[in-house]
Amino acid sequence: MADVSNGPLRVAVAGASGYAGGEVLRLLLGHPAYRSGRLEIGALTAGSNAGTTLGELQPHLLPLADRVLGPTTVEELAGHDVVFLGLPHGQSAAIAKALPESTIIIDCGADFRLTDSAAWEKYYGSPHAGSWPYGLPELPGGRERLRGATRIAVPGCYPTVSSLALAPAIAAGIIEPRVNVVAVSGTSGAGRKLDVGLLGSEVMGSVRAYGIAGAHRHTPEIAQNLKAASGSETDVTVSFTPVLAPLPRGILATCTASTNVDAAQARAVYEKAYADEPFVHLLPEGVLPQTGSVLGSNAVTLQVTVDTDAGLLVVIGAIDNLTKGTAGAAVQSMNLALGIDETAGLSTVGVAP
Amino acid sequence: MADVSNGPLRVAVAGASGYAGGEVLRLLLGHPAYRSGRLEIGALTAGSNAGTTLGELQPHLLPLADRVLGPTTVEELAGHDVVFLGLPHGQSAAIAKALPESTIIIDCGADFRLTDSAAWEKYYGSPHAGSWPYGLPELPGGRERLRGATRIAVPGCYPTVSSLALAPAIAAGIIEPRVNVVAVSGTSGAGRKLDVGLLGSEVMGSVRAYGIAGAHRHTPEIAQNLKAASGSETDVTVSFTPVLAPLPRGILATCTASTNVDAAQARAVYEKAYADEPFVHLLPEGVLPQTGSVLGSNAVTLQVTVDTDAGLLVVIGAIDNLTKGTAGAAVQSMNLALGIDETAGLSTVGVAP
Amino acid sequence: MADVSNGPLRVAVAGASGYAGGEVLRLLLGHPAYRSGRLEIGALTAGSNAGTTLGELQPHLLPLADRVLGPTTVEELAGHDVVFLGLPHGQSAAIAKALPESTIIIDCGADFRLTDSAAWEKYYGSPHAGSWPYGLPELPGGRERLRGATRIAVPGCYPTVSSLALAPAIAAGIIEPRVNVVAVSGTSGAGRKLDVGLLGSEVMGSVRAYGIAGAHRHTPEIAQNLKAASGSETDVTVSFTPVLAPLPRGILATCTASTNVDAAQARAVYEKAYADEPFVHLLPEGVLPQTGSVLGSNAVTLQVTVDTDAGLLVVIGAIDNLTKGTAGAAVQSMNLALGIDETAGLSTVGVAP
Amino acid sequence: MADVSNGPLRVAVAGASGYAGGEVLRLLLGHPAYRSGRLEIGALTAGSNAGTTLGELQPHLLPLADRVLGPTTVEELAGHDVVFLGLPHGQSAAIAKALPESTIIIDCGADFRLTDSAAWEKYYGSPHAGSWPYGLPELPGGRERLRGATRIAVPGCYPTVSSLALAPAIAAGIIEPRVNVVAVSGTSGAGRKLDVGLLGSEVMGSVRAYGIAGAHRHTPEIAQNLKAASGSETDVTVSFTPVLAPLPRGILATCTASTNVDAAQARAVYEKAYADEPFVHLLPEGVLPQTGSVLGSNAVTLQVTVDTDAGLLVVIGAIDNLTKGTAGAAVQSMNLALGIDETAGLSTVGVAP
Repeated sequence: MADVSNGPLRVAVAGASGYAGGEVLRLLLGHPAYRSGRLEIGALTAGSNAGTTLGELQPHLLPLADRVLGPTTVEELAGHDVVFLGLPHGQSAAIAKALPESTIIIDCGADFRLTDSAAWEKYYGSPHAGSWPYGLPELPGGRERLRGATRIAVPGCYPTVSSLALAPAIAAGIIEPRVNVVAVSGTSGAGRKLDVGLLGSEVMGSVRAYGIAGAHRHTPEIAQNLKAASGSETDVTVSFTPVLAPLPRGILATCTASTNVDAAQARAVYEKAYADEPFVHLLPEGVLPQTGSVLGSNAVTLQVTVDTDAGLLVVIGAIDNLTKGTAGAAVQSMNLALGIDETAGLSTVGVAP
Repeated sequence: MADVSNGPLRVAVAGASGYAGGEVLRLLLGHPAYRSGRLEIGALTAGSNAGTTLGELQPHLLPLADRVLGPTTVEELAGHDVVFLGLPHGQSAAIAKALPESTIIIDCGADFRLTDSAAWEKYYGSPHAGSWPYGLPELPGGRERLRGATRIAVPGCYPTVSSLALAPAIAAGIIEPRVNVVAVSGTSGAGRKLDVGLLGSEVMGSVRAYGIAGAHRHTPEIAQNLKAASGSETDVTVSFTPVLAPLPRGILATCTASTNVDAAQARAVYEKAYADEPFVHLLPEGVLPQTGSVLGSNAVTLQVTVDTDAGLLVVIGAIDNLTKGTAGAAVQSMNLALGIDETAGLSTVGVAP
Repeated sequence: MADVSNGPLRVAVAGASGYAGGEVLRLLLGHPAYRSGRLEIGALTAGSNAGTTLGELQPHLLPLADRVLGPTTVEELAGHDVVFLGLPHGQSAAIAKALPESTIIIDCGADFRLTDSAAWEKYYGSPHAGSWPYGLPELPGGRERLRGATRIAVPGCYPTVSSLALAPAIAAGIIEPRVNVVAVSGTSGAGRKLDVGLLGSEVMGSVRAYGIAGAHRHTPEIAQNLKAASGSETDVTVSFTPVLAPLPRGILATCTASTNVDAAQARAVYEKAYADEPFVHLLPEGVLPQTGSVLGSNAVTLQVTVDTDAGLLVVIGAIDNLTKGTAGAAVQSMNLALGIDETAGLSTVGVAP
Repeated sequence: MADVSNGPLRVAVAGASGYAGGEVLRLLLGHPAYRSGRLEIGALTAGSNAGTTLGELQPHLLPLADRVLGPTTVEELAGHDVVFLGLPHGQSAAIAKALPESTIIIDCGADFRLTDSAAWEKYYGSPHAGSWPYGLPELPGGRERLRGATRIAVPGCYPTVSSLALAPAIAAGIIEPRVNVVAVSGTSGAGRKLDVGLLGSEVMGSVRAYGIAGAHRHTPEIAQNLKAASGSETDVTVSFTPVLAPLPRGILATCTASTNVDAAQARAVYEKAYADEPFVHLLPEGVLPQTGSVLGSNAVTLQVTVDTDAGLLVVIGAIDNLTKGTAGAAVQSMNLALGIDETAGLSTVGVAP
């Protein structure tokens, strides 16, 4: 744990001009440690946007509008207790190596999520940098791995909701290890990327799938999480279809797998699994998750039932991809790493309508 | 076939104040028979909106803005060659009985879609009115059933795209008769209904599932179509999850089923099945359907591949739920019933962006 | 001021099923007094929704999901220190009369906003109930009127941004007292009302004006505020055009009036007027307000310049109509009435993108 | 007029990968001359997208999906009877000079819109290329200028609706020559441009003004049109504020100017001005334009009234910026230039909801 006896905790954000970095800052500005002066927002860095004020890039962060972004270098990031990384793939390892072991580094990117080098190389086409404690406390054993950790890999947004939607069932052995996930996402999941297909004119009024049939990089991450949750050596087969819809934030995942149990039995498994979780909410029977209800919140809302005719467990899950799906998980992980209240600075209240 | 030798064809639309009725009128206004004076738009009727001008209710139909809606009665609808019905469930049978056998009645509602009384009663909770020729020409044998028909049941919007996405595979025997459909729809599929959950404030910025685990009434309709396509007596099990997204029009369906074939074999099946279809377009390899590209068009765009790791056929399909999913199918069926060019008044050009 | 020495402050919300009531609750759940136990959320009431859980109606307020709504009666609302009213027009006076003078009543509705009976009767067509201290602290003298007040009228959403955009100019005498406001609003400003024109299918993909040429009820409220700000007896003429756009939240107002000063002089006036305001932010030169940056925040962002060719002052202002435009102003007013930190529970950080 | 006796008319589109070019093609595919084989779609060209199929860039134009884009060169465009240009500013003059005088060139860009060199240079910062007949037939004298023309400048989208909204009033002398226009536009008006501010994540859920206080290049174009309509030598002062809203298509303009007439008198002026116009529709009293009703249509819907208290004429106008605002005007101009039915291939029926 970071030593905070000598003054406030200093936190840096690399990639402060992107959506992940912006959301980390939004959450930090509302964090009780920041409000009480025990946490300071230090260096904010960017790539091509270095030299610009944050106000030009993230005009919603009014209290930091005058801050000028520095370049993303080890020099800028040195001297902080916590460093959040919101960088393109492949840049985290070098920075992590250059910073002290005691610095808490929380990587919102993919570089250290996968444990299997072969899976990494197949999906990312580059050498595997290794793996770090995985920032999803609600998975079996997840919380323990994060307490006091100084290197943390924040999960991908799709794996967060998909894994939480299916882990209890696979851990309880009530589904076969072949799952199907179709997840509808808002556009911010693609990042602040100049891509014709992400222009407002193209996105509004249209829905499209992409990265189908196992092509999306989040597929092996879901499989890894579910295999770990199963407590078995058997691989879990994941069919994953991401779908882009016209909204900025939110993921709604529809997850199915063959089951022999009935709806009440399935529900009991989920009630037990998440009874004490502050952020995972199993909704009352018949109430279905909607992404609008978790906008800006760190909550995961779930509904579980069984399609008797089809013999399938059906779990629907909703998150905000930028909050619980990225920056909320990052802050939650920071809290655990620091040994402070896990929920500090995180809310289960959404901004709606 | 309607006798058009004694003057122009007269067409009525019951339910002209709703979305289905409005879209039928939009297409009729662009139909070459209307433009050349061989087709007249006769009675326009409504329920509680009777007495109102169409301009107040459907301001996009400028050429008919001054038309006053009559009540939906047999008297109003009598004397037409073609009657389109866009009515709440349960109202079509009485009207159909009171109109002559020779009148072409095209029902955009559900009353006559299902052939199985037990399935009807289970899903609709009312006595089964019977079944009419099904307005999806692209299904095996579909076109023949519609030529010269005088009673036609327009398919549901979800069944249209789901059935066209899976019928070739099931007909060719390359998938198991257990299919999974997750379909994302725009809000107009729910009709012009006063429902808090359909308010713009609730819908924009949010995605939600509804009618999950076999609860949606389109489930048995998909199963019926696929069983018929299979040419087998074996029932097809359908897991169907509809998802509501923030756009007015469009459905994107993700359809999966277990397969042993590879992507090239699957593609060959679809190329052959739809080679001569004017409205079903198998996109080039790697190009994925998007609903925005078929806005206002009668096209169905499909992509098919195989997820080798998961052993699943994956078919993505896109339609405009109000055009090919409702009113376009209705006009296409009318064309077939009348024995005129099936594509008249229908386009494969979408309005984008 | 409410006596809080005998235990926590008890707060009730009447109209908890509507958008204003929901937003008040969202803000209260994040208020430091609530978090520390010094403020309790008491009765939550509704009209036709009484008897329902809040979770069914406001699923984004997870911590209060199990609370059952009571009827909006004096009995339910009695015994609280603060009562927020989010009710249809005409219902507030009776409730206010029946509750003790010492209860802080904060009315999010229009009943007590106008001081001029004739204006009220012309625009609302009912007898004038009177006027209460107006909950816009940033207007000249506004803050003083609210300190210790026990009856507060929360401003309308359009008047909030329009008045703050123009008050400094009119107070400084740099514009003529004839102003033009065209304000684009999200749909939540219309409330959670079952109206075909507010359905998602109608709203998305469309922009429309309504209540033009002085017909909107917020017109006299803007005129009242600007006249008061001018310190003169001359009426201010307001041309006001509200426009509905496809987004749930946010108002962007374009305000113009004849001027003789140049852009630098105008800017100086605004810099001075809002130098010490915690929520009103004059953006750097050339940076324009956008509603997305103030989503969920209590900030007002402004830009001011002069169109030299046209001889007009041009002020653009953005707010979140539910936060600063309604519930944020209500909480800010409560804070002032209670004599606590005016900014408590309110943020200038928006949720973006 | 082009000589069509020797075979079908050949039409080229330069800039076929952009929104203007795509919309021209959408309209041409529905044009009766194309359907009957009297018009052929020849060369389709692009800049950096040359070599790509149209299907990859404009997937909604299914009938042309296999067409490969050529480079935008004189060689590619030669040999056509009509050439539509949808190019960045500054490229049209060279192409026009190199093509025969008899080729009908219809420029969707700005290069030849302004008659005043000083205004051009002030707003575009480059030498003035000259001016061509202006493609807005509904302005006084507009139709005559276009009949048989071989060089046509298509109006800007904002000037189209603003000029049609105010021209009758200024021509009739019922308003002062100082007008105020606040126009809300969809994002396609900005073109298919890679700009962070146009990303879906930034655009959805946000409204913002841009180019305020006379900075937008459409300001002098509106002034030019209104001065010409006035029949006077007095300049018209235009205050113009463009606002970006979250929808792909549509402009809603709120136009005001001082007047002494009453609403009935104003209405009479507009009724007379547009009585015979096929595309300009003055809506019934009290009915307000909405952009959703003209989606994909060439219609302009207007409402006019007087704000008596403010002494202002208020005109609201709606168009589809890509249809009547760009490509519809281009096709309408082509029809006039060719001497065929002005309305051919253009509709007043919108795609709604």
